[in-house]
Amino acid sequence: MSVLIVGSTALDSIKTPKTENPRLLGGSASHAAIAASFFSPVKLVGVVGDDFPKRYIQLYKRHRIDREGLQILPGKTFHWSGEYEVNMNNRRTLLTELGVFETFVPTLPNLHQKSQFVLLANIAPSLQQHVLNQMQRPKFVAADTMDLWLNIALPDLLKLIKRLDAFILNDSEAHQLTREDNVFAALKKIHKLGPKYVIIKKGSHGSILSGPRGFFICPAYPLHTIVDPTGAGDSFVGGLMGYLATAQGSIDENIRRAMIYGSVVASFCCEGFGVMRTTRITKAQIEQRVKELSRLTRF
Amino acid sequence: MSVLIVGSTALDSIKTPKTENPRLLGGSASHAAIAASFFSPVKLVGVVGDDFPKRYIQLYKRHRIDREGLQILPGKTFHWSGEYEVNMNNRRTLLTELGVFETFVPTLPNLHQKSQFVLLANIAPSLQQHVLNQMQRPKFVAADTMDLWLNIALPDLLKLIKRLDAFILNDSEAHQLTREDNVFAALKKIHKLGPKYVIIKKGSHGSILSGPRGFFICPAYPLHTIVDPTGAGDSFVGGLMGYLATAQGSIDENIRRAMIYGSVVASFCCEGFGVMRTTRITKAQIEQRVKELSRLTRF
Repeated sequence: MSVLIVGSTALDSIKTPKTENPRLLGGSASHAAIAASFFSPVKLVGVVGDDFPKRYIQLYKRHRIDREGLQILPGKTFHWSGEYEVNMNNRRTLLTELGVFETFVPTLPNLHQKSQFVLLANIAPSLQQHVLNQMQRPKFVAADTMDLWLNIALPDLLKLIKRLDAFILNDSEAHQLTREDNVFAALKKIHKLGPKYVIIKKGSHGSILSGPRGFFICPAYPLHTIVDPTGAGDSFVGGLMGYLATAQGSIDENIRRAMIYGSVVASFCCEGFGVMRTTRITKAQIEQRVKELSRLTRF
Repeated sequence: MSVLIVGSTALDSIKTPKTENPRLLGGSASHAAIAASFFSPVKLVGVVGDDFPKRYIQLYKRHRIDREGLQILPGKTFHWSGEYEVNMNNRRTLLTELGVFETFVPTLPNLHQKSQFVLLANIAPSLQQHVLNQMQRPKFVAADTMDLWLNIALPDLLKLIKRLDAFILNDSEAHQLTREDNVFAALKKIHKLGPKYVIIKKGSHGSILSGPRGFFICPAYPLHTIVDPTGAGDSFVGGLMGYLATAQGSIDENIRRAMIYGSVVASFCCEGFGVMRTTRITKAQIEQRVKELSRLTRF
């Protein structure tokens, strides 16, 4: 089954202590779509300007990503520029030019509205809701978010969370949302907002799922060097949804393994700028790391 | 087989945002010894003053801890007082009275010198070395440390590390020692200092082992509430060494499971002030949490 992925499609200029790379393919939907494409067909919904490099369209194409829902409008593509500190954990935004993204309204082609698996990657929660309003009867809806929406659009976000099967956020966002320092206490509170599955991402410390079968402690794949962590969280949710959409059996049976696959794709994402590494991985390399994660956690 | 545990034996006065408790049984050796006692006989080496409460001697006794190496000297027992912040991660020292600990020289009774499993719990690295100098042919020597010794006794600590089978430290200490932000890069550098096994503790994020069979990602047991994390790291190494000392088979075969047991005892430690919770656990409760950790990480 295919996954519908809605989010931002952007150009990222990224500076790290070692190097800098201008106008990389970025945005939550780009990272998530490429990650999901290793497991299932992807329908991408987003917007780019007429300055969007043709090579990036080709790149979507190589990953067999359906682009019917990708609007190409006169104007500039959303451009984000950021800089990472030495420890690669903290980053600061140098520049945000919204361009055509400023007035983006995600309108779904007919066929897209029947999608069973929907990933609302990080964009404004009002837009995420707008997508949900167009869906017919999705089987499984997951959404990611970011601190910005907790700061400026909390009521919208809370309305959205109620309608989700799975809500995915990182540990600092979970703290901001619940005022709980303890991640398990935070998970409990977030369940009360609606979703059956809550996943808290903890970067290099892995992630935690809370669902009907209890908790799952999902490890991060051990990396000695992080080249660029931008998009790792998006790759995680993308890989997760791609895996879920094609796996046999129930969500409950598959979601742990789906997180492991998401975690593995996210690890590759960190090994290159933008999607440079992610676009070059093979299925065999993914399976290799999944096996290693199994070995690394067995006792 | 028994474990020889050398370290501090202290009285801890601990303040948390919710409550405060004066003159609890504390110190690295006390926590480690009680944790180890669930798995193997323990020989404790330390020093206390003549003000040391009889009930704490009784408590050691109840855990069948050999006290031949516990010196009781005229004067005051080492007293530490600290306060935790709301998130229970950061603590500050309010007071340190060394008392008889100031001139402590760990002298091993004859029988102790033949111990096979030796845990050098956190004390000055010169004292840890002094213990090692008295040992005859130990099979497995592990040591823990703290940031203080990295600051004021680094040359001593480096000499000690060379002589260890296993070195255990927390993530911020690993960063301080190696200047590496990445935990896997830090592990690699620490191996070069000597030890075959290096374990980095990451608090609620679990711990990572690096050894001849590669990495092991050891989860922390999920806790909703942390009453007092003091001694959790000591309980972890204590449980680990206690398990190793009695397990059949090679260290390589057992060390992962030993970390899981250590992690479980540490989780109990966090659920009460001082050793209040740890001293009340049963073997069945430990096994229950080990089983749960296995379920929580399976995929």
